[in-house]
Amino acid sequence: MKLACPRGFRAGGLRAGLKASGRMDLTLITSDFPCVGAAMFTRNRFPGAPIIVSHEHLRLAGSRIRAIVVNSGQANACAGKEGIKAALGMCRATAEHIGCRLQDVLVSSTGVIGRIPDLKKIQAALATLAPEESESGWMQAAEGICTTDTRTKTASREIRTGKTRVRVLGIAKGSGMIHPAMATMLAFVATDARIGKADLNRAMKTAVDRSFHCLTVDGDTSTSDSIVVLANGAAGGDVIRGGTPEYKAFTEALTAVCAELAREIARDGEGATRLVTVAVRNGRTEAEARECAMAIAGSNLVKCAIFGRDPNWGRLACAVGNCNARYDPQRVVIRIGPTTVFSHGRPAKFQESVVHDYLESNTEIAIHVNLGAGKETATVWTCDFSYDYVKINAEYRT
Amino acid sequence: MKLACPRGFRAGGLRAGLKASGRMDLTLITSDFPCVGAAMFTRNRFPGAPIIVSHEHLRLAGSRIRAIVVNSGQANACAGKEGIKAALGMCRATAEHIGCRLQDVLVSSTGVIGRIPDLKKIQAALATLAPEESESGWMQAAEGICTTDTRTKTASREIRTGKTRVRVLGIAKGSGMIHPAMATMLAFVATDARIGKADLNRAMKTAVDRSFHCLTVDGDTSTSDSIVVLANGAAGGDVIRGGTPEYKAFTEALTAVCAELAREIARDGEGATRLVTVAVRNGRTEAEARECAMAIAGSNLVKCAIFGRDPNWGRLACAVGNCNARYDPQRVVIRIGPTTVFSHGRPAKFQESVVHDYLESNTEIAIHVNLGAGKETATVWTCDFSYDYVKINAEYRT
Repeated sequence: MKLACPRGFRAGGLRAGLKASGRMDLTLITSDFPCVGAAMFTRNRFPGAPIIVSHEHLRLAGSRIRAIVVNSGQANACAGKEGIKAALGMCRATAEHIGCRLQDVLVSSTGVIGRIPDLKKIQAALATLAPEESESGWMQAAEGICTTDTRTKTASREIRTGKTRVRVLGIAKGSGMIHPAMATMLAFVATDARIGKADLNRAMKTAVDRSFHCLTVDGDTSTSDSIVVLANGAAGGDVIRGGTPEYKAFTEALTAVCAELAREIARDGEGATRLVTVAVRNGRTEAEARECAMAIAGSNLVKCAIFGRDPNWGRLACAVGNCNARYDPQRVVIRIGPTTVFSHGRPAKFQESVVHDYLESNTEIAIHVNLGAGKETATVWTCDFSYDYVKINAEYRT
Repeated sequence: MKLACPRGFRAGGLRAGLKASGRMDLTLITSDFPCVGAAMFTRNRFPGAPIIVSHEHLRLAGSRIRAIVVNSGQANACAGKEGIKAALGMCRATAEHIGCRLQDVLVSSTGVIGRIPDLKKIQAALATLAPEESESGWMQAAEGICTTDTRTKTASREIRTGKTRVRVLGIAKGSGMIHPAMATMLAFVATDARIGKADLNRAMKTAVDRSFHCLTVDGDTSTSDSIVVLANGAAGGDVIRGGTPEYKAFTEALTAVCAELAREIARDGEGATRLVTVAVRNGRTEAEARECAMAIAGSNLVKCAIFGRDPNWGRLACAVGNCNARYDPQRVVIRIGPTTVFSHGRPAKFQESVVHDYLESNTEIAIHVNLGAGKETATVWTCDFSYDYVKINAEYRT
């Protein structure tokens, strides 16, 4: 798929030797022009050092952000003062490399908690890294941030606002320790839209609420969760202002990019064999619809059943029954794919073999719940739960 | 271990042919004297038919409860009117068998959701069942309620209140779909104490708060969760009244019995190879200490690491960081067994091989967290997370 690369941004990645596996482990995204930035970080009480540093730089840089540097292999969380020193060192090396102020650089790390990336290796690698304004540059950048991911995650949209073409491109990583509490895992989005900081921030919150906040792999929120959106205005045209049709179109594009990345993270969940989309409709409120969807998506038992291709409607009903949404149990209808498996508080009459075949022959599974209580809907993404999840996480550090 | 059998109670179990495996599947507990009863049931919105019936019978029977009948193999949840009919049928057959009113019998079912037990088989089996006032009777009863359990769960205490000996005996089942929302899974406790309904109820709530509410295997709350405590007064002596030293001693005995059963459920968690006790101290409140402990006990990643014998302190710190308790991250200390692995916001200096050996050579693992924020403590129980959990739950209905 062709990516719509936003103007004035350059991206790249390489092997800095931070990972024992020898895979790509360093990503650099730069902008030729100063950017406004919006970001959300983990609510975990032990945030990584790069999050502490980036939070401060976002405040100091104003609307002059120029780069994000990211390593994978070491999360640089719970690493005390040396962790902060390493995160600042990554920013400083990047600032010198591209010629900007220290505070104009954001930094991010992902990998094993408690380990600090080797700054000397990063400095040496950065000197050889020339990011490009091209699809291949972004593909490298997407690869450099991966850990247990089995595939890179990219998404982009191009929209027209008035006479101006605007591009939104995002990359993300994430496979385990995935459960939204603020933003989920690492996602970096670049756009050449001309937009102010407050409007960018609001658009990001809307997008995250309908993408990364609708995602769970295993119920664990990481110490490194981050989403950063940078806008450099290189598309030109009028400034996109809140409340206008242009703002609406921009927010929709940003939401689409984030939702595609969130779905890709679920598809690539650790050990996953199935991408599972849970759609709940007719909830009293959107929050209740989402809570119900997350109760299903968060159930280990539902996810084991999907791995076993078992049309176990009992576990679905049980998960719905455990959520706090307001509804009449007698009105609840549950479908697996096209088949109604539960209605009016009872199992529906259906052929188990048909649903088994659906679960066996599709890699994308849809679960629909009708709460019959209101008009609001929510969609969340997760994956099934396999032996390999246990294997990956029993052996992760060995 | 010798059980302290409460006077005037009889228990037994047998094979009624409800399970394809041919294992024991029917349990009957009776009392020669009318009992006061206290019970807590699942908060799930799709409670099993036996829960609906027992709830009503508890209300109707007053202080004249005479029996509990339990089948395993079919949960009789989400089974509509036929489910209610079957649950009432089990009560009626029991009432005729022992000679009491319909409403003096409580009923419980556990197994596959949506399946209804075969009433004819139960009626036929009951006719041959003569429960005994003996340890072997209680052992049969404990076996008859098991599903994926690999061992029976019993606990008892004998205390002296004044000149009177009082016995408290409990049986429980549970292995998967274990996460407290009111009471967890099935637990039946019999005591010959003379105690009023209100005091029994209060003592039960205290006990459950410190036992079944401190337990998680996989984060899923079942549609059948129940705890029932029956007291028949056969011990004689003065009535145990709230606020007295006798009430305190009785509540402690009840709590000890429930806590032992909860611990046994965690030890026998589906696929478990390790019993994990998480003790949090110096929380601001008991609720916050428990929330922190449950955040660790509920983390799939922590549990996979324990299965992998990996001293992964990062996941422990991450789980602590995800809970809402109030504390200063710089004061948090975490121990695995005797070894401090994390202190003052940083990994402690420790030999990973020592902790690995501890995890490898012990079947009971202790995790201690000091929040350094107050004086309250909480202890919860869980188990590790293995391939077999996935296997059991991928193949459960096949």
